[in-house]
Amino acid sequence: MTKQGFGKLASLPDAKKILYSLVKDVSSEEIPLDDALGRVLGKDITAPMDVPHFRKSAMDGFAVIASDTFGASQTKPLELDIIDSITAGVVSKKKLSSGKCIEITTGAPLPEGADAVIMVEYTEKEKNALTIYKGAAPGDNVIKIGSDTKKGDTVIKKGVILDPRHIGVISSFGSAKVTVKKRPSIAYFSTGTEIVQPGEKLPPGKIYDINSATITNAVKEQNCELIDMGLVVDDKKKIKDALLEGIEKADFLLLSGGSSLGGEDFMVEAVDELGEILVHGIAVKPGKPVLIGKVKGTLVLGLPGYPTSALSNFYILVVPLIHKMLGIEKKKVNVRKKLTRKIASTIGRYEFLAVKIDGDYAVPVMKGSSSITTLSESDGFLEIDENTEVLNKGDVVGVSLF
Amino acid sequence: MTKQGFGKLASLPDAKKILYSLVKDVSSEEIPLDDALGRVLGKDITAPMDVPHFRKSAMDGFAVIASDTFGASQTKPLELDIIDSITAGVVSKKKLSSGKCIEITTGAPLPEGADAVIMVEYTEKEKNALTIYKGAAPGDNVIKIGSDTKKGDTVIKKGVILDPRHIGVISSFGSAKVTVKKRPSIAYFSTGTEIVQPGEKLPPGKIYDINSATITNAVKEQNCELIDMGLVVDDKKKIKDALLEGIEKADFLLLSGGSSLGGEDFMVEAVDELGEILVHGIAVKPGKPVLIGKVKGTLVLGLPGYPTSALSNFYILVVPLIHKMLGIEKKKVNVRKKLTRKIASTIGRYEFLAVKIDGDYAVPVMKGSSSITTLSESDGFLEIDENTEVLNKGDVVGVSLF
Repeated sequence: MTKQGFGKLASLPDAKKILYSLVKDVSSEEIPLDDALGRVLGKDITAPMDVPHFRKSAMDGFAVIASDTFGASQTKPLELDIIDSITAGVVSKKKLSSGKCIEITTGAPLPEGADAVIMVEYTEKEKNALTIYKGAAPGDNVIKIGSDTKKGDTVIKKGVILDPRHIGVISSFGSAKVTVKKRPSIAYFSTGTEIVQPGEKLPPGKIYDINSATITNAVKEQNCELIDMGLVVDDKKKIKDALLEGIEKADFLLLSGGSSLGGEDFMVEAVDELGEILVHGIAVKPGKPVLIGKVKGTLVLGLPGYPTSALSNFYILVVPLIHKMLGIEKKKVNVRKKLTRKIASTIGRYEFLAVKIDGDYAVPVMKGSSSITTLSESDGFLEIDENTEVLNKGDVVGVSLF
Repeated sequence: MTKQGFGKLASLPDAKKILYSLVKDVSSEEIPLDDALGRVLGKDITAPMDVPHFRKSAMDGFAVIASDTFGASQTKPLELDIIDSITAGVVSKKKLSSGKCIEITTGAPLPEGADAVIMVEYTEKEKNALTIYKGAAPGDNVIKIGSDTKKGDTVIKKGVILDPRHIGVISSFGSAKVTVKKRPSIAYFSTGTEIVQPGEKLPPGKIYDINSATITNAVKEQNCELIDMGLVVDDKKKIKDALLEGIEKADFLLLSGGSSLGGEDFMVEAVDELGEILVHGIAVKPGKPVLIGKVKGTLVLGLPGYPTSALSNFYILVVPLIHKMLGIEKKKVNVRKKLTRKIASTIGRYEFLAVKIDGDYAVPVMKGSSSITTLSESDGFLEIDENTEVLNKGDVVGVSLF
């Protein structure tokens, strides 16, 4: 039953192409804006109105006709009559004519006839008489109609992950609802006779399950719906049952362990017997033993058993897949740092290299893929493409942050 | 009732000092590890055991005594007897002696006597006879005890925001629980007669409330407990009632609007009458009209009414305050970009400048603080300190990402 190697490894781009072909774009749903944080916008937001939709004062002060105030200064103040006083939210019934002014607070609608606001700091008020110590030009301290957004402008594009700023923009149009992509559902289980769930006693030769913790939390962090199937023992019947259950419940099924070359690796056989294996082994480091299969048309993605490999492959395979399903257009910000040592990489193999950031430097963390602390001690990672054989000390590299 | 200016503005460092003096460090609680994502670690994690706690195979192959294999090659293979076959999680009862080997899968405990593993790829198995085509040095493909973590090592420091990597490390020790900081509770309300909640009809001169959406979501994004008190109209009695309710329920109270200099600004009076105003006006741009007060010993922090100012002050005042309460030691990664234009700043005033990132360049987004789209169109921000008067085109600046 021992297999003699993986055969030909798929390249990362080919593996991604296959993954992408096995999932559907998720559909959209309308939800309350209050629940929108972290969700992915399902359709472009086009401004239904100008914001602001009326001229308003940018300052506390007095609405004036600018030409009335020309030449006013500390040594040559001018006087105006105060004919009304309005606050934000209140529309003055008065119309301004020459020699008059209206007291106004920040955000209040500019009265008819007014074309500027003089800040309260440059005035002195005595009953209904206002002394002004500084002139205003037309438009001074006036917020123009549509200065924030103009009616019809596309202000947020679909595929954006909504954060407080975007939700604020949607609020400014008075919308209490928003159309977002549904959350992809991902089922997950770990396999392996050697693994024991945290909280239980550890028999000789066994280790605690790490991948359940890392992968289920990585799924949650991507704001997907997690169907946590826990630990399934290395028994072909049980694995088959779990595979069938997982593909029934979720958009796709993730699992870890059981896809290397060991004698106990029922996973490969189970997928093969229930469906089809499309890729077994990807040219990435760490994490060659990746399994891509489909069962009843649904994607089954087996991540490597090593914790670092499982999580790094989640970042390079699963995150892009989720983004694809959601249509996420995430702008990648290039954090550029200098490498502190030479890194030899293998031609033909895509490499994920964990790094610590120290000021302007990227320090490779090299404890090996069996070590979960490799990732917990780093700040981000480099991706070294298939065609790069060496990165030299001092090379400037782009780092993706965790 | 109109006030003639703010008086002396507090510097940002002074304002922060006062804020910090008004909050207590939050206490810790033990929670299930499954709920730990995004929570802040409450005490250092020290490894209670070596991980791994036994020598194990890094590969699928055959456990051997390395010296038995010296000199084996493709042209000069050697033979060994296979005396057992073990998989991960299983301890072999056999002890290895010279000339023997044990079939082993990745992760399985190394048998007694063995000191190396030969990868399956370099072997040929025929019943109980193994032909090996490559020699092994002692330690080859063996994962050492404690190679991931050593018993007694501090592996995660308190104050870290737990992500999948950290949760994986904690799992590796078999812990199903973790001690985290309690989530700070923050009450929030907006004020202003001019604002209307999204979903309602918009009367003349009024605008939709943006700050409720941005600030409540910013609180949620910081993983704090939000007590959302909605919109409180500009009426001193109602504001006083809301202030008293908010400080009762939360670690501190945030509010926005009502802290500028307008005639309807009951906020300042309400805080003054119920407690004490400590700061009114901070030397930051945008967002001078910040109010810091205390009522019955609890912090009341009034953010500016302008949406961009409210949110930028949240980032420069409230986020550091939350980090202080939680003891978060967040490593700041410096994203360095070149400015595309000259920026004049005011000496004595700390400036928050929103920027879009375009490759290696930071492009200032300058639509003004009344505009919420200033932030939604940008990728991050620069902080320009009080002593900087000008940043030149081409200057390399550090950008904090949203």
